[in-house]
Amino acid sequence: MEEHFTLIGKRVPRIDTLSKVTGEAKYSADLKLPRMLVGKIRRSPLAHARILNIDTSRAERLKGVKAVVTGQDTAGVKWGVFRYTQDMELLPRDKVRYFGEEIAAVAAVDEDTAMEALDLIDVDLEELPAVYDPLEAMASEGPLIHEGFPNNINIHVEIMVGDLEKGFKESYLVREDTFTASEDCYFQGEPYAVVARFDDAGNLEIWMPNAGPHMKAKPLSNLLQMPLHKVRVRKITIGGAFGGRSEISPADYICALLARKSRRPVKVAYTREENTVNVRMGHALITTIRTGVDREGRVKARDITCYMDGGAYSSTGPIATSVPFLCMEQAYRMDNVRYNGFRIFTNKPIRGMIRMHGRSFACGIDLQLDMLGKELGIDPATMRLRNARQKGDYTPTGSYVQSCGLTECITRAAEKANWKEKYGKLPPWRGIGIGINSVQTGFPLGIRGGSQAFVKFNEDGGVTLISGVADNGQGNDNMLVQVVAEELGLDMGDVTLITADTEVTPNDPGTYSMVTTFAGGNAARLAAVDARNKIFEIAAEEMEANPADLVLKDKKVFVRGSPERFVPLKKIIRTGLMKGRPVSGEGHYSPKVDQRREWVKNPSGQLSETFSFGATIAEVEVDPETGKVKALEVTAAQDVGFALNPLVLEGQFEGSVAMGGHGGMLTEYHSWDGGRCLNPTQLEYKVPLAADMPPINSIIVESGDPSGPYGAKEAGMSIAMSAAQAYASAIADAIGATITDFPMTPDKILTAIENRKKGKHSDVT
Amino acid sequence: MEEHFTLIGKRVPRIDTLSKVTGEAKYSADLKLPRMLVGKIRRSPLAHARILNIDTSRAERLKGVKAVVTGQDTAGVKWGVFRYTQDMELLPRDKVRYFGEEIAAVAAVDEDTAMEALDLIDVDLEELPAVYDPLEAMASEGPLIHEGFPNNINIHVEIMVGDLEKGFKESYLVREDTFTASEDCYFQGEPYAVVARFDDAGNLEIWMPNAGPHMKAKPLSNLLQMPLHKVRVRKITIGGAFGGRSEISPADYICALLARKSRRPVKVAYTREENTVNVRMGHALITTIRTGVDREGRVKARDITCYMDGGAYSSTGPIATSVPFLCMEQAYRMDNVRYNGFRIFTNKPIRGMIRMHGRSFACGIDLQLDMLGKELGIDPATMRLRNARQKGDYTPTGSYVQSCGLTECITRAAEKANWKEKYGKLPPWRGIGIGINSVQTGFPLGIRGGSQAFVKFNEDGGVTLISGVADNGQGNDNMLVQVVAEELGLDMGDVTLITADTEVTPNDPGTYSMVTTFAGGNAARLAAVDARNKIFEIAAEEMEANPADLVLKDKKVFVRGSPERFVPLKKIIRTGLMKGRPVSGEGHYSPKVDQRREWVKNPSGQLSETFSFGATIAEVEVDPETGKVKALEVTAAQDVGFALNPLVLEGQFEGSVAMGGHGGMLTEYHSWDGGRCLNPTQLEYKVPLAADMPPINSIIVESGDPSGPYGAKEAGMSIAMSAAQAYASAIADAIGATITDFPMTPDKILTAIENRKKGKHSDVT
Repeated sequence: MEEHFTLIGKRVPRIDTLSKVTGEAKYSADLKLPRMLVGKIRRSPLAHARILNIDTSRAERLKGVKAVVTGQDTAGVKWGVFRYTQDMELLPRDKVRYFGEEIAAVAAVDEDTAMEALDLIDVDLEELPAVYDPLEAMASEGPLIHEGFPNNINIHVEIMVGDLEKGFKESYLVREDTFTASEDCYFQGEPYAVVARFDDAGNLEIWMPNAGPHMKAKPLSNLLQMPLHKVRVRKITIGGAFGGRSEISPADYICALLARKSRRPVKVAYTREENTVNVRMGHALITTIRTGVDREGRVKARDITCYMDGGAYSSTGPIATSVPFLCMEQAYRMDNVRYNGFRIFTNKPIRGMIRMHGRSFACGIDLQLDMLGKELGIDPATMRLRNARQKGDYTPTGSYVQSCGLTECITRAAEKANWKEKYGKLPPWRGIGIGINSVQTGFPLGIRGGSQAFVKFNEDGGVTLISGVADNGQGNDNMLVQVVAEELGLDMGDVTLITADTEVTPNDPGTYSMVTTFAGGNAARLAAVDARNKIFEIAAEEMEANPADLVLKDKKVFVRGSPERFVPLKKIIRTGLMKGRPVSGEGHYSPKVDQRREWVKNPSGQLSETFSFGATIAEVEVDPETGKVKALEVTAAQDVGFALNPLVLEGQFEGSVAMGGHGGMLTEYHSWDGGRCLNPTQLEYKVPLAADMPPINSIIVESGDPSGPYGAKEAGMSIAMSAAQAYASAIADAIGATITDFPMTPDKILTAIENRKKGKHSDVT
Repeated sequence: MEEHFTLIGKRVPRIDTLSKVTGEAKYSADLKLPRMLVGKIRRSPLAHARILNIDTSRAERLKGVKAVVTGQDTAGVKWGVFRYTQDMELLPRDKVRYFGEEIAAVAAVDEDTAMEALDLIDVDLEELPAVYDPLEAMASEGPLIHEGFPNNINIHVEIMVGDLEKGFKESYLVREDTFTASEDCYFQGEPYAVVARFDDAGNLEIWMPNAGPHMKAKPLSNLLQMPLHKVRVRKITIGGAFGGRSEISPADYICALLARKSRRPVKVAYTREENTVNVRMGHALITTIRTGVDREGRVKARDITCYMDGGAYSSTGPIATSVPFLCMEQAYRMDNVRYNGFRIFTNKPIRGMIRMHGRSFACGIDLQLDMLGKELGIDPATMRLRNARQKGDYTPTGSYVQSCGLTECITRAAEKANWKEKYGKLPPWRGIGIGINSVQTGFPLGIRGGSQAFVKFNEDGGVTLISGVADNGQGNDNMLVQVVAEELGLDMGDVTLITADTEVTPNDPGTYSMVTTFAGGNAARLAAVDARNKIFEIAAEEMEANPADLVLKDKKVFVRGSPERFVPLKKIIRTGLMKGRPVSGEGHYSPKVDQRREWVKNPSGQLSETFSFGATIAEVEVDPETGKVKALEVTAAQDVGFALNPLVLEGQFEGSVAMGGHGGMLTEYHSWDGGRCLNPTQLEYKVPLAADMPPINSIIVESGDPSGPYGAKEAGMSIAMSAAQAYASAIADAIGATITDFPMTPDKILTAIENRKKGKHSDVT
């Protein structure tokens, strides 16, 4: 790591704060284009049905209606993230598979007309038997949701490493438990909205919240049967992603169809209900874990079977089938292990990528470890220390772990949270618990695995960075500016940012799978270094010095060790321009992974170049009368490699505790009437408020990753994951019973307390 | 030159035609932003006056008025293209110097309100004595327009090469004539319009017709006292420039001031009158030429004095003071020469860069050569051939001429126009004449002398070109796409173009001084070549071949000579992305000139890397009853170096004949009442229509310039210049008398005929 940074590692306020506070920041729903129409979507009132006929003639005749589209207006191209999972028509022609699925859409001059037109579309459906439970869907001879997927099994991932039988045989203690959890949703601050317009040459410009414009453009070009370069996904402010902006949305496609048909710009803005039901969800999971440990609590063998309710289509869900296991194999040493993951189709809304893949899976691993430890007389923190992943390890599926500060996370969090003083010694109804987790910095993503950036100097000595990175709200724009300003000795204000526009900006994998700082940050840094080298070449001639002896700081080029020998950067840039040597730079970074097409089904080899690790400790108090949980204090420690900006990191940590732990383990879940979601809005779906949150201690652990920019890797996600585990562990500690169905709502807590009083030690499921 | 081009050299239809025909192309005046206000400008009713007081209070109180600005809202920064000519406040505080100068401006919710508010501004002016004639302004003890410029002389350029006295002494024949011409204007299809908006962070986005966004951004940042990177000049369709979009306009500055003060977007759209009077003009000239020739008509000595009416401010006019001479010294050999150019301030609208600098100067040179030839019995074509510039020459001011097809232009034009059969043998009232000229490909322009371009490949094998080049309507966008597609073996449709946006695109000198194909085209070509080299590196590994053996054509990489051994380009791009090697390229080109600050005042050294040359022959018929001239046929030959696209070139040639020859010598001029322009609109200012034009023979001469892209240099301008000379020469031939005041309007022609009938052989002035 370099020393004496000016900006890197400093608590630099984010550049995007002002515009968000003042309302200047424009989101897709704020966009207005001349002659823009309002697009609205007619949705299925049945969870499973054949489309017999759609008559749009009455709707088309309504004054003010400019276009109506149905599956008949499409080429029938199916979307899916892998070739073998392309099973979804984004505007279906023959069949609907979940309640709320898109059937038709209209574009009209105003919202009232559009809504009226929706009612005038005559839809003739033949109801089909539906199935809502993944185990029923898998077992029964009942309805088949997709042809070609027997037993409604979308994907089966099987991993087997080591000798499971031997491992269990050598175990001192073995437990088997089953953990379940309902679906949850992303609940982004910004409901989904799209604006699309075609020019006369047939070029599409489209704005929408997205985790990666290049990831949107390609499927759109496929679906619309247009060349990729005629699809321009444009930069817009984005109000949160959390996995839910990672893939093509029916709204993107439908909005583009309406714009093409009406020959006018169209905006489709989702209601909150649509944002919940029609923008994917997190999978519901049923996970059975059998774990054998030795006398010291070290895991000897682990056998896991996980059934994931995938909803009606593949979407990005296949990726989610292996990720919960991968996070756990990264966090915990386990030599003899078997994992069977099944993603199963049901007639429910589609599940895709989400910020915390398999939260209930991870909670199960940790709660079971607590129970095993209890039987062995080993406290949860020690249980985790004894099984924690170490630097230099290989994961079961074969990824080398090049940096790992997990042990430091556990010990520093335990120290800060007074673990030793508190564990087992808290007053009644209070509990303390711990969770650990690990996430990737990118997956093998083929052609979208690498990020590229350009910088160009302007004649005043300021610089423009052109990068494909999107900022979903987490501060990526700020990160890029901080990196480039640091490398070029500039103020943050001297860096102009052009990002996230498929026409202007180069390739980027997209802001997901925790890769952005690692890949995008590295690319921006390398582009700046490339430009700096050119600056040094020009300056060396001017200063009669060796380029290798030069340093760039405070907008001046210095001879190292001679603070009096300098030339202003601006002068060098102008000299370069005068001499016909404009200063620009290019950088690209692609995480070093084993590029294998079938890695989702059969993960092996280096699946991510590096990993981040986190440990969270939560202290809670349970009200035995109401079953309500009050979080008293949370301590979150993460190995981020290197803290580029502690201020932003702490924001990430705090948001992660709120979303992952507090919302995820206490209040957030979906309830159902068959295939119909009963709580899609803010009123019924309980997202934590700032006022709900306990004090949070953020601990930044820096393992100095050898490949990350300045040693940095992902920040926040390992907390979002482990916070849920810590809350679960703490509640179990407080009530003296383990609830195995998540989230741990007051009704379940009261039942668990009741059972314990009755002497039942069995878990609440 | 490479062989076997696919696109280069072909008659490729322009990519921007469709959008212009359908109206899809959006010009600045078409732009609409939410909450946008209408800006209007209050102008001076006097040609010279002191501003005593401006009371805006009544205007500000009018409902719907959101901002009023006067000179008091400015920092008083003065604009001028050189430091020593910074004499103009774009919204003056103390004094107005021409009729129509900006005094105040309002932004209001609609045009009616804005116009009403203009009337409510109380302006108290003290009228000052004004002067409208440059010779009066120079000689008199009368009004001084600017402090620090005695005798109102803005700039005096003196060039002296060789031995003038000896030259005249050795001459067989000497003539001295004086030629005069009125001002003319650009008459772009698109009246000037600007839209400006500030965001909350104080960043300015601004759209306007411009010949180079980087040239606009810098003075705007100076005037507004903002960092350059906070000023973003954005791409917009431009409806013609002709020199009149080359510099900062008061409208740019005022629109930005109004937007900043009102905190809303503002549009200022000029009326046609404003576009004529307030967007510069071409200078009025009085040129005295004394030329001595030997018996064969070869010029032995030439002494030129030129007085240019500069109007009220320097603007870019100082550049125009030397350019008329430079064009002539490039076109004609002249060893012993003196040039005295004076630009003089008057109280008239400002004169700046124009497409045909010193047209009347050039016409004078050619008409005088005709008269000298007549006395010697040598026909005009031969006179020109004997004095024509040749490859390998140095110009009097010291520029090396690295390519020159002027002789070929003259001979091929003469052959095509049947010069020998026609000259001296035409029926009465018919005449044939010839003109020759030469233009530069860029001047020493310091930091804005070079062009840079980036290309980036997209995953579908298409490419995006990012270039600072602006397209004012002449087809630069098409040129760039053609070059990049050629180098990368793509179809034109595979190239996406990002241009002319100061935030996104790198430096470019601007689309003027005929440099764009030369510098911008070269930069784009080099960027494509850089990318192609990376493609060959990747392909060589895939194909187990040597990169040097590879060729890229038809979207495939071939092994040279083995048409069966190829890999699709798209596959190489995708392989590169998979391997973490995204394909991009950078290129830059800066014309090789002697960078001297004082070149305008004292030109010497290499002033342009290369030059283009043209010869035009016009055949006309004069109606002796009405004095009207009918052009019968025009033959235009130009050495363009290499014809990148003959179709576009022919369009340039034809437009050049219309503007330079037909409009310039027959109908276009301004008339005045003191300082007030009497013919600022379409009704009174006569621009030629398509129906007025004769058949035009375009002859492309290719000298293969060693530095131009594929050998190309400028195209069209040498025709625009020489066409006026040819028309003048032909009219003189038709009526048997030389008119020395331009343009040659029917009244002057009738007078000349009348004089000739009276036996007067003196010229009409």
